[in-house]
Amino acid sequence: MGTWFTEKQTDHFGITAKVNRSLHKEQTDFQSLEMLETEEWGNMLVLDDMVMTTEKDEFVYHEMLAHIPLFTHPSPKQVLVVGGGDGGVIREVLKHPSVEKATLVEIDGKVIEYSKQYLPSIAGALEDERVEVKVDDGFMHIAKSEREYDVIMVDSTEPVGPAVNLFTKGFYEGIAKALKEDGIFVAQTDNPWFKSDLLQQAYGDVQATFPITKVYTANIPTYPSGLWTFTMGSKIYDPLQVPAERFHEMETRYYTEELQTAAFALPKFVKDLLQG
Amino acid sequence: MGTWFTEKQTDHFGITAKVNRSLHKEQTDFQSLEMLETEEWGNMLVLDDMVMTTEKDEFVYHEMLAHIPLFTHPSPKQVLVVGGGDGGVIREVLKHPSVEKATLVEIDGKVIEYSKQYLPSIAGALEDERVEVKVDDGFMHIAKSEREYDVIMVDSTEPVGPAVNLFTKGFYEGIAKALKEDGIFVAQTDNPWFKSDLLQQAYGDVQATFPITKVYTANIPTYPSGLWTFTMGSKIYDPLQVPAERFHEMETRYYTEELQTAAFALPKFVKDLLQG
Repeated sequence: MGTWFTEKQTDHFGITAKVNRSLHKEQTDFQSLEMLETEEWGNMLVLDDMVMTTEKDEFVYHEMLAHIPLFTHPSPKQVLVVGGGDGGVIREVLKHPSVEKATLVEIDGKVIEYSKQYLPSIAGALEDERVEVKVDDGFMHIAKSEREYDVIMVDSTEPVGPAVNLFTKGFYEGIAKALKEDGIFVAQTDNPWFKSDLLQQAYGDVQATFPITKVYTANIPTYPSGLWTFTMGSKIYDPLQVPAERFHEMETRYYTEELQTAAFALPKFVKDLLQG
Repeated sequence: MGTWFTEKQTDHFGITAKVNRSLHKEQTDFQSLEMLETEEWGNMLVLDDMVMTTEKDEFVYHEMLAHIPLFTHPSPKQVLVVGGGDGGVIREVLKHPSVEKATLVEIDGKVIEYSKQYLPSIAGALEDERVEVKVDDGFMHIAKSEREYDVIMVDSTEPVGPAVNLFTKGFYEGIAKALKEDGIFVAQTDNPWFKSDLLQQAYGDVQATFPITKVYTANIPTYPSGLWTFTMGSKIYDPLQVPAERFHEMETRYYTEELQTAAFALPKFVKDLLQG
């Protein structure tokens, strides 16, 4: 059999992946961090025993977190990513030529360090001259910012450990303040099969803060249930009303112009959750 | 820890679910059959060590296999389901008032027997008076049929064991013959992450047989990668051109009128697979 990494995604269900070797393991100031070389998924970043990203399927999450809000905005110039120390979202942000500056605020410098070492195809973009990397508390960074950003993306872990403040109404209010008057915000909001409470709560809180609030999904095989949700709050622009001429040529492996709309077509039980 | 059922979905990756008890286990004439009571998913039907259906997430697969083709057809009356002995697809078929007769041809009578006993919310519809259940070889049934059906759905296992003939060009040609001149066919065609060859092959073979061939997806947490594909072959009707007035009130938990179109918006890497 050899060594297998098992993530219990609920108390009674999980995924299991064959591990060739552990590349690095440590307790950082914020969380346990492990980098595994797996047979199926390539190198895999694990924080607090949860899969954060893998070389094989990372493109889905990173593309879908970034491109949906970035195409919703007519000309995103100043972009902030909270969390996301692996650099994957930043890589996608930089594909948009209007972007002048992409700021990454990651609380755990070790995530950046080991992503650069073991996930170079993901973290390489952090070296780009348009990128500023800050090792800092995202909640505090947001609290200090005012009308600075066109788009803010929250690429956090689950609301345990360092990310617990990133799923609060106060945080969403801070984000609204940190955004320009036509700004857009998006956050990963877990899955509707096992974490419907979290999604419902986040949706309600974002809705209380932003005039336009919408949820979209993507399929991420190594994340619980394979169905991931993203909740978007927007001050003016509607993600379902993107003019056709705004789309530009861009290399992607998941995102398509069609999915800009189709990703918002939710399964009935998810729609019901959000209306409940 | 207790007892856990692990399905190796690839040689190097799998899912694992806590089992309260095994309700039934036998080697039938065609395959190994096990019915498990699990903590996360309710009762779970396992054939040849692969999860076939669970009480908690079965609705996704059954709704999406049935409703997409049934709404594509203006008035489906005669419907055939090949495989699907658990009865879930039949339950969904019967939600369409135009359906006069739904025929189920399942090769393994034991699947029907134990689904009725342990999955009554799924298999109960098999008792409906519009349903005819035949324990027979689906391939042979198709070979003998001519211009009989409006819609044929293939709800098979993977192409191992009894289902191996159900993924062949000859079978698709037989289906085209068994369908009326405006008939529609749909089959489950596995997932694009681990079984891209299967999907590509099936798509090519269906495309060689039907004027309109399209692939759509749904999220099924207990199936490999969570992203399942369905390949539809149609003689005349386009699933993306369903008139709004055709939709009727229907209780569903996954399918929506919006998903009738949105489910065909494929991730870029899946589109590329089909064009490759």
